[in-house]
Amino acid sequence: MSRLDSFIRRLEAQRACLNRAAELIEGLDGVVLELGLGNGRTYDHLRELFPDRDIYVCERQVAAHPDCIPPPDRLLLGDMFETLPAAQSRLGGEVALAHFDAGTGDAAANRKLAAGLRPLILPLLCPGGILATQQAMNGPDLIAMPLPQGVAEGRYHLYQRT
Amino acid sequence: MSRLDSFIRRLEAQRACLNRAAELIEGLDGVVLELGLGNGRTYDHLRELFPDRDIYVCERQVAAHPDCIPPPDRLLLGDMFETLPAAQSRLGGEVALAHFDAGTGDAAANRKLAAGLRPLILPLLCPGGILATQQAMNGPDLIAMPLPQGVAEGRYHLYQRT
Repeated sequence: MSRLDSFIRRLEAQRACLNRAAELIEGLDGVVLELGLGNGRTYDHLRELFPDRDIYVCERQVAAHPDCIPPPDRLLLGDMFETLPAAQSRLGGEVALAHFDAGTGDAAANRKLAAGLRPLILPLLCPGGILATQQAMNGPDLIAMPLPQGVAEGRYHLYQRT
Repeated sequence: MSRLDSFIRRLEAQRACLNRAAELIEGLDGVVLELGLGNGRTYDHLRELFPDRDIYVCERQVAAHPDCIPPPDRLLLGDMFETLPAAQSRLGGEVALAHFDAGTGDAAANRKLAAGLRPLILPLLCPGGILATQQAMNGPDLIAMPLPQGVAEGRYHLYQRT
């Protein structure tokens, strides 16, 4: 499997999991939280999936396509280890879907980042809220959900907040 | 269609066209030429498809994954408008497959680049050689080939050198 194959597989898994997440939160009130804007492709997909929900986006420094930049009042600008705790008062228990994809090729660094972010994301999720993440975030208060067809175990992760 | 959808579609089209190109040149001697290394994902795919062919790569400045950097004697380092003419003596008529994907979001700039590169690529291709390109390069000496199933007309292009 080439890096091109593996990249396509990861993007397909991401899309399938976000589409599934949209079904899972259909009856649930709450906002969407994208942890990392990057080039804005995934944010654009979330906008399509959730035209009626507020989508908040964490980003250290915006470098996305001009069409994919969130409105300033939905942008949590800065280091997530600072912006997520600061967002507790506004977004605590209000997030119906959070999405995280570290998106770097450094698996060890990605795992460490995911472990560090987990306790910051958890209190933002409403009961029944979904966390879609490329990096595993197993542990208390999150139930692993079945993955969409075609997504191999471990390639992406869907959790539901108890 | 979101930017995520459209990006996945483009990568899938690229892969399908390269895989088809591999079938088309099966009986043809010659090297492979990748016009632009980028992060090295496509180069990695070409290495898998063509383990027995020399793969030459044009790149202005190498910034690929360390595992995806071509050996120095197969790297045409610098501006393609200089390196391609300079490669004529070594590679003229020797290329069985050339691949070009500008990979930027600026469609007008991509078209201009493709038009500029066409006359530099053409003399490198051997008769029957294939040019796979995201940007159209219609014109004399190149016959448009049918695209693989699932790739919509115009999304990617396969040409055969007469």
